[in-house]
Amino acid sequence: SFNLISRFKACISCLIFKLTWCSVAQVVMGGDSYGNYLSINLGFGLGVTMGIHIGGGVSGAHMNTSVTFAMCLIGNLFWKKLPVYALGQLLGSFLAAVTIFWLYYDALQDYCGGNFTVTGPKATAGIFATYPAPYLSVAGGFIDQVVGTAVLLLCIQAINDQKNCSALSGTSPLVTGLLVALIGISLGSNSGYPINPARDLPPRIFTAMAGWGTTVFSAGNNWWWIPVVAPMFGSVTGVLIYKVILFFSDEFNKYANKHKNKLQALKKESRSLSTCN
Amino acid sequence: SFNLISRFKACISCLIFKLTWCSVAQVVMGGDSYGNYLSINLGFGLGVTMGIHIGGGVSGAHMNTSVTFAMCLIGNLFWKKLPVYALGQLLGSFLAAVTIFWLYYDALQDYCGGNFTVTGPKATAGIFATYPAPYLSVAGGFIDQVVGTAVLLLCIQAINDQKNCSALSGTSPLVTGLLVALIGISLGSNSGYPINPARDLPPRIFTAMAGWGTTVFSAGNNWWWIPVVAPMFGSVTGVLIYKVILFFSDEFNKYANKHKNKLQALKKESRSLSTCN
Amino acid sequence: SFNLISRFKACISCLIFKLTWCSVAQVVMGGDSYGNYLSINLGFGLGVTMGIHIGGGVSGAHMNTSVTFAMCLIGNLFWKKLPVYALGQLLGSFLAAVTIFWLYYDALQDYCGGNFTVTGPKATAGIFATYPAPYLSVAGGFIDQVVGTAVLLLCIQAINDQKNCSALSGTSPLVTGLLVALIGISLGSNSGYPINPARDLPPRIFTAMAGWGTTVFSAGNNWWWIPVVAPMFGSVTGVLIYKVILFFSDEFNKYANKHKNKLQALKKESRSLSTCN
Amino acid sequence: SFNLISRFKACISCLIFKLTWCSVAQVVMGGDSYGNYLSINLGFGLGVTMGIHIGGGVSGAHMNTSVTFAMCLIGNLFWKKLPVYALGQLLGSFLAAVTIFWLYYDALQDYCGGNFTVTGPKATAGIFATYPAPYLSVAGGFIDQVVGTAVLLLCIQAINDQKNCSALSGTSPLVTGLLVALIGISLGSNSGYPINPARDLPPRIFTAMAGWGTTVFSAGNNWWWIPVVAPMFGSVTGVLIYKVILFFSDEFNKYANKHKNKLQALKKESRSLSTCN
Repeated sequence: SFNLISRFKACISCLIFKLTWCSVAQVVMGGDSYGNYLSINLGFGLGVTMGIHIGGGVSGAHMNTSVTFAMCLIGNLFWKKLPVYALGQLLGSFLAAVTIFWLYYDALQDYCGGNFTVTGPKATAGIFATYPAPYLSVAGGFIDQVVGTAVLLLCIQAINDQKNCSALSGTSPLVTGLLVALIGISLGSNSGYPINPARDLPPRIFTAMAGWGTTVFSAGNNWWWIPVVAPMFGSVTGVLIYKVILFFSDEFNKYANKHKNKLQALKKESRSLSTCN
Repeated sequence: SFNLISRFKACISCLIFKLTWCSVAQVVMGGDSYGNYLSINLGFGLGVTMGIHIGGGVSGAHMNTSVTFAMCLIGNLFWKKLPVYALGQLLGSFLAAVTIFWLYYDALQDYCGGNFTVTGPKATAGIFATYPAPYLSVAGGFIDQVVGTAVLLLCIQAINDQKNCSALSGTSPLVTGLLVALIGISLGSNSGYPINPARDLPPRIFTAMAGWGTTVFSAGNNWWWIPVVAPMFGSVTGVLIYKVILFFSDEFNKYANKHKNKLQALKKESRSLSTCN
Repeated sequence: SFNLISRFKACISCLIFKLTWCSVAQVVMGGDSYGNYLSINLGFGLGVTMGIHIGGGVSGAHMNTSVTFAMCLIGNLFWKKLPVYALGQLLGSFLAAVTIFWLYYDALQDYCGGNFTVTGPKATAGIFATYPAPYLSVAGGFIDQVVGTAVLLLCIQAINDQKNCSALSGTSPLVTGLLVALIGISLGSNSGYPINPARDLPPRIFTAMAGWGTTVFSAGNNWWWIPVVAPMFGSVTGVLIYKVILFFSDEFNKYANKHKNKLQALKKESRSLSTCN
Repeated sequence: SFNLISRFKACISCLIFKLTWCSVAQVVMGGDSYGNYLSINLGFGLGVTMGIHIGGGVSGAHMNTSVTFAMCLIGNLFWKKLPVYALGQLLGSFLAAVTIFWLYYDALQDYCGGNFTVTGPKATAGIFATYPAPYLSVAGGFIDQVVGTAVLLLCIQAINDQKNCSALSGTSPLVTGLLVALIGISLGSNSGYPINPARDLPPRIFTAMAGWGTTVFSAGNNWWWIPVVAPMFGSVTGVLIYKVILFFSDEFNKYANKHKNKLQALKKESRSLSTCN
């Protein structure tokens, strides 16, 4: 059925995207020899690029539950599709966590002797889910996730809006990936930029089951619920801000049509250095 | 009104672009664990890319006051548009500074215990505005900003000039972002490459108000006015150099039309390895 | 003959791609001064990009024996073409190893005084072929190579499938190169991501002949056969997973055609944020 | 005249490209705080990208004397054009050296107190021209430059050959820049990859005049002449290898036309995973 297919596609593209956590695994366990913070950012970004190439054709590359939620809220998607996509996303993310555990099983045994911890010098829980910096307050973490997700949504819409200054349809997966890398480069140090419930919750549940225990939920002052709830607010904020921009653009176009001769000149000149035509 | 819309768009795209200062915040406060100089350069570049995607459609992505100024000077933009755009740019930049302060409030408290300083081992003012290297003279700083802004303008024009060897309209936001990264990679160590009054002055004013005090203006031998004034000269220089190139190209084309048969052969052969057709 | 030409093209593009091992040589012998793990990943990726630009026109840029094998198995290529391409790939890879030895002969003499070793502080065999991390078990290494090659194949097919959300034909060599960089960033620390028999076996044979001795085969618990055999399984896995995705997509399209009015709306809306149209 | 224009364009695009040496200056004098080897590679690459965008329209972006020489030798360019372009290239490169000296004058004074040296802990001559690694023999350096330039030419031709698997005309400046970055990442540690007489000789002459003395010529066992002579051989080699590939491709096409039905099937299938159509 349609639901099954959507769920399957969302699941597969999530799985590929989520495999890029491996870039974190390499840096956590291998130190500087196998990457640095920049390589993690590029890994996450390029993982999103590949996820869109795989899942873009049928399901629209829904990989982020907060994006799917915002689409429902503004009326672009039926509410009944939300659980379909969300289930696919959560399943894909969980399977990715299993695959990474499997891939890095030898490395984990070697690194911490099978003693899986959430904090301390040999902590490995951060390979799977995010944990906040020690200084981060609940309010600070919530703001961090709202702003990060809002920036994501605002830019994704601009990248794909052919009435604005969009990327080519063949290059937008790459540009979207670079956007995710950018968010990591500039908004990652507070909490590891989950900005997606499906990125964070399923692997956290997996680690709770696989030996890290319930500390994965209590750590960071019960951090776990913030990457689940805050991105919802963030993505709605991002969508609304872009709606305001579109409203202004439409107003501009109406105004321009009224005062065509005078305005067209103005508009043309004001774009003289623009990259869009 | 048209003015309000232009200002709003300039403001929003500036805000997104300016959020990339966060990449500086991560490196200043997190050290090597959260990035390096290259990641800051990529962050600034990709931030410009996203700013163009968002603001390119209506306002022509005016995010740099010195560019807007140069456009007015050479007659591509009415002078009365300058304050409209400039106000939007300065406002967006100021709001970005507020947002960053808000996002990294916990981190700032943790890093320097709320003691905001411009110099010294725990200096944090460099997250918001630029400060020159200790060795830099006033003349050296001025030259640095003129050359940096001239290179920016010269290349932006070439990237978008469809009569030359331009990028695709869908890829030029990315190429323009990489240009800004390039300027950081090669011209950033003297003074942190402001090359834009709107990038530097509003966050400096914000820091003066938010607890860093008036030292933000006196530091670096009163550095603050150079990123405001020098880019104006630089952008005019860059525009003029490109005008000279265009003049020579036109002369070439006239000459080629006169001596068509002979020259066309010459021209064709001289392009045999060219990337442009 | 056709066979000769195919072999020649496969050989040349392999040679160029394999020259990127030099990025490993620089880091092994020059330390941090001449690159880091990220630069190796980018080097391998961009090498693949250039190999596709060179070999894409005639031979379809067959540079990976396991890919050629998978194509035969699923019936896209006659089995009799397998030895033709494989021979070209292995020859190109061997010639690349000779060239690198030649290029870095002075550096090798300087680094280890002509004492070529597979393990120990001055080990240099890793410049040419891959060796597993000390902790890696045989099963772990096999899984590592199956997963890595499956991800490669799955994504390559999506990047080039114009019925899905593909890259442009002119940008797909770059995106494919970034995919290889991504695999290095996220799946490289266990064993150096050979994911290609032709990448690993010929230079290993070369090193056995050039002074490193038969240790190159016995090292890592006889590691040498895993990068030869496991990628075959991985590439078949990747091809099959993508076939399943295509099957679901076709089912979806059939279903959509039956329930056209209702489904088209659904499909359209579910793509509202998609990067593909 | 036509000559003057060609020379002017070659000069300007060289100047921009050569300004990317500044990325070396930043790392030499600022250490890890202002970049690393990877950022230098990216700086050189993106500099080439910008040089092509500026100079591609009229002069075909001739920025490399050895490329111009190869074009003359194979009959694609009249020999009398060689001195025209070469003069522009050398002049642009010399002016770039002057600009960099000017830009980093304060930094140079601060770093080495005005004592300009070619070797030793505070050596700064490497900012302007290349110097070989201590271990490099004359033969090794010559081979290094021949191989590096041959790879450059081979790939540039493939990137721009629309009968092969080329980049888009709007993305090829970027891909060409990434090619130069790749050469730095993989072939840079022996001698700093000059691969272009115009990149190396003029700034060396400038340093001889500006206070570094004649040591800039005698250093590295009289290294100076190798980046002038060897790239000539390398670029001819690269052009010839690509001619051989084209010859084989043409033979293939003739053969394919004769045995059309049978071969077309073969050709099609052999491209099933290709990125080119």
